Amino acid sequence: RIDTIAGIINGTGNYILTEMRAGREFGEVLKEAQALGYAEADPTFDVEGIDAAHKLTILAASGFGVPLQFEKAYTEGISELTPYDIAHAELLGYRVKHLGIARRRDDGIELRVHPTLVPQSHLIAQVDGVLNAILVDGDAVGQTMYYGPGAGDEATASAVIADIVDVARGLGSNSQQRVPYLGFSPDALEDLAVLGMDDVQSAYYLRIQAFDHPGVLAKVASILSEHGINIESIMQKESEFKDGRIPVIILTHTVQERQMNLAIAEMEALADIDGKVVRIRAENFN
Amino acid sequence: RIDTIAGIINGTGNYILTEMRAGREFGEVLKEAQALGYAEADPTFDVEGIDAAHKLTILAASGFGVPLQFEKAYTEGISELTPYDIAHAELLGYRVKHLGIARRRDDGIELRVHPTLVPQSHLIAQVDGVLNAILVDGDAVGQTMYYGPGAGDEATASAVIADIVDVARGLGSNSQQRVPYLGFSPDALEDLAVLGMDDVQSAYYLRIQAFDHPGVLAKVASILSEHGINIESIMQKESEFKDGRIPVIILTHTVQERQMNLAIAEMEALADIDGKVVRIRAENFN
Amino acid sequence: RIDTIAGIINGTGNYILTEMRAGREFGEVLKEAQALGYAEADPTFDVEGIDAAHKLTILAASGFGVPLQFEKAYTEGISELTPYDIAHAELLGYRVKHLGIARRRDDGIELRVHPTLVPQSHLIAQVDGVLNAILVDGDAVGQTMYYGPGAGDEATASAVIADIVDVARGLGSNSQQRVPYLGFSPDALEDLAVLGMDDVQSAYYLRIQAFDHPGVLAKVASILSEHGINIESIMQKESEFKDGRIPVIILTHTVQERQMNLAIAEMEALADIDGKVVRIRAENFN
Amino acid sequence: RIDTIAGIINGTGNYILTEMRAGREFGEVLKEAQALGYAEADPTFDVEGIDAAHKLTILAASGFGVPLQFEKAYTEGISELTPYDIAHAELLGYRVKHLGIARRRDDGIELRVHPTLVPQSHLIAQVDGVLNAILVDGDAVGQTMYYGPGAGDEATASAVIADIVDVARGLGSNSQQRVPYLGFSPDALEDLAVLGMDDVQSAYYLRIQAFDHPGVLAKVASILSEHGINIESIMQKESEFKDGRIPVIILTHTVQERQMNLAIAEMEALADIDGKVVRIRAENFN
Repeated sequence: RIDTIAGIINGTGNYILTEMRAGREFGEVLKEAQALGYAEADPTFDVEGIDAAHKLTILAASGFGVPLQFEKAYTEGISELTPYDIAHAELLGYRVKHLGIARRRDDGIELRVHPTLVPQSHLIAQVDGVLNAILVDGDAVGQTMYYGPGAGDEATASAVIADIVDVARGLGSNSQQRVPYLGFSPDALEDLAVLGMDDVQSAYYLRIQAFDHPGVLAKVASILSEHGINIESIMQKESEFKDGRIPVIILTHTVQERQMNLAIAEMEALADIDGKVVRIRAENFN
Repeated sequence: RIDTIAGIINGTGNYILTEMRAGREFGEVLKEAQALGYAEADPTFDVEGIDAAHKLTILAASGFGVPLQFEKAYTEGISELTPYDIAHAELLGYRVKHLGIARRRDDGIELRVHPTLVPQSHLIAQVDGVLNAILVDGDAVGQTMYYGPGAGDEATASAVIADIVDVARGLGSNSQQRVPYLGFSPDALEDLAVLGMDDVQSAYYLRIQAFDHPGVLAKVASILSEHGINIESIMQKESEFKDGRIPVIILTHTVQERQMNLAIAEMEALADIDGKVVRIRAENFN
Repeated sequence: RIDTIAGIINGTGNYILTEMRAGREFGEVLKEAQALGYAEADPTFDVEGIDAAHKLTILAASGFGVPLQFEKAYTEGISELTPYDIAHAELLGYRVKHLGIARRRDDGIELRVHPTLVPQSHLIAQVDGVLNAILVDGDAVGQTMYYGPGAGDEATASAVIADIVDVARGLGSNSQQRVPYLGFSPDALEDLAVLGMDDVQSAYYLRIQAFDHPGVLAKVASILSEHGINIESIMQKESEFKDGRIPVIILTHTVQERQMNLAIAEMEALADIDGKVVRIRAENFN
Repeated sequence: RIDTIAGIINGTGNYILTEMRAGREFGEVLKEAQALGYAEADPTFDVEGIDAAHKLTILAASGFGVPLQFEKAYTEGISELTPYDIAHAELLGYRVKHLGIARRRDDGIELRVHPTLVPQSHLIAQVDGVLNAILVDGDAVGQTMYYGPGAGDEATASAVIADIVDVARGLGSNSQQRVPYLGFSPDALEDLAVLGMDDVQSAYYLRIQAFDHPGVLAKVASILSEHGINIESIMQKESEFKDGRIPVIILTHTVQERQMNLAIAEMEALADIDGKVVRIRAENFN
């Protein structure tokens, strides 16, 4: 049984994130990618995660036997990412990748595309440039990963990724028991609903711009604690700004997104905090 | 069309090579692997490449449509590898992996299992421990790699790797044109002979123990040149031995093994050289 | 004017710390150092910082023109250090060195020998093995560092380090204005008292063993905040222990040791915290 | 007795070399250094090694007790260095620094300023930016290194570096035996002549542009062998040029410069070689 399918499934986005690791801005790298022919004149389809959501929907259908339901996938692009957060994720031992993630849980299916911190030591963090990779995690054989070029047109790519999942699905079973190909036995499709983002479970990278009161960190830690959110690490940088604001960077353990939304709202209401809290999801895949 | 299939297809061997990178001897790591249950009491099947040759034979049959012909596979184990050569391969930018390699050439098929230098920057060099990885290189989609745990028993593993190659084989084609599964249409099997090792093409890592005459390097370079063998790099280490022997380490470009055998025979006949020449094949996969 | 003198001034201790970076225990490395002749059968003089305090006293006398007052130096050895804390300091970008530190402040002189976190990127962090290094920081020329073998007997070493400081003291001044050698003009010795440890200023690495209540981090942050102690970073590790205790590692900004002592006492009184708080001082030298 | 004094004694040059490691051209970095105020409008004094030769002359006078003889120092600048050679030196484990080197030999004194490969693992290779470092190697105490900011005006700098050498000179001796300060006892100055560059001993980095005949490497190795020059390593790069020229990079053991000059002349006369041989000296300081 497959539990998780997660992939770098858009070459344009992965190229841009790879280049941003050198400290470059999104807009600058996008222009270069367009000049090199890696990105379209209108890059929305790639960088906002729409293409990745299409492919993820097919992966989930093939892997979990659920209907294609693209409109229910959560889609968040990479255009708001900053080199600052990418660099600080690296300092914490993580790399930012634009992942499509499909996860089967008892109460439904997570289906989401967004920038994601993954551990630098995981093989999927090593996949650079226009290349794609699909990680499949199941109870029978553990994690497997497929790695290769992003296929040219979407139809081909869809066929390819469906096949990959088919292989993963059949791993460890003998041929009689193998799940039939997508479409061959529609009656076997499972009836698992796609969960709303409030019900998704994830770890989080948070960046807060705090005014330099020694107590702000204690307040933030209290808010997280009250929502049952465990902290893996906190970095409070020396102020790099004239106005005294200091960035506080937090990496949490896994929690339901609903709780995180509440905690972020409370943090943003603090007088010690400036503007919005930056939030990037994180997956450890272990 | 698939041109090359290359894989880390024996978890025991890959575990041992991974540990040897820390400077440990083969025998010591093997004992540890046996204690941990990663290696059998009689490890021959794993460390001498027999298991890998079985799997490679299936991969080649599935990928190239040729009959299963295990007895024609060349098999060389890892028990003779030294931490010294592993460390010097690293210095040159390479990692030693125990690979099964099947390659389709116009005049036949290469089918061989042996220790192999691969570039550290290639994803396959990052596959550590008991994990397996299969690299497939074809004209339609370039390089793809499958990565996952080595499956438990041989039969299962064979089915899995056959499936992987099937997927790779079908990449980019539409479903009507896909090559049928192994055994379904035996008449389609291509009639490509397995080539003898003399006809195999490879790059080489060579280590020569020279007596410290300044001219020995010139003589060695001349012999290689006369056999049309291009040199990528040479390292002549300061003598670490009381008796004045100095190791000369050479990395060559790709050449036919027949030429290399002749060149090595001539080198071993030189009075300036002590004992046998150590030879490890190398693949750049580019 | 010289403000700070800080040095790795005991080769035995530095050898042991260098080896402990590979994850080895103090006791094991000490035995090895004794076998190699780097440590005495009774290692107290070296590993407890007594030898370093002697040399530091001479450095301070020479650099600041104060009397020799060995009995006022604070001395803390390295025998309690664990590979665990050394490894986590590294994760935070720091290296643990056994430093002698003499610092001139308006109200007195700090004179102390203890394990110290220094930034990995600082040249003094690169000084490995039995070698010594002395860093001198002054208003005229900024930081200078002297690096070399630890001299054989103590008398020689003292002469050497006195000379080094003399040079540093004279930097940028013309020869008429140079401060005379130690002992030549005792009347010129400044009358700065050596400060007690309560008055020393330092940054701190803290390790707390917390019971796994989400709220413990907020409580700890509150305590530090109430004592005016700013936090640079916090790491809360996943529990590695059967009993549910989780290590919380904190790096603070510079604060007076008196405040830190109070804060640590309050933390150790928390029901959520197990045993003593591990505390290692840290210097950024910037 | 001091045997070798070697230093990074010009901050401008070291700044430029540090920046060139990122792949940037000399001219581009020089312009930036001028804009930042690190280099003069006329940079000749700094980048051609004249300033460094002045300081080296003083170091040698102080360290060896010989007269100041600036006009006999060999001076070679860094303006001809390419990022290509800097990068390949790094691949071989070396860093390029602009060193002043004074070495006492039985038959005279070497006095030379030139770009020099030093092992990356040596502390002097870690000295980046406008900082200076002086390495002193003597029979009594082994290697010591002084590290600090390059002093502002030349006169000050000279006094500083003279003092440093004085300290090094006195190391390990008791105060009665110490060599007096420069100028105090001119009659004690030793009568060692400065050697011509033909008599200097050095290791060498060579880069040859060869036309792609397999035999060229054998010819080059023969020429070096005939002049008694031992090779530490050779890299023959895949051709990166349309015209088929391939760079051959050689690192030699220590040899007299006279022999190297003869060997280079013979190499440049080969029909297989294009243009001049690039030559950078190398020091291992061990």
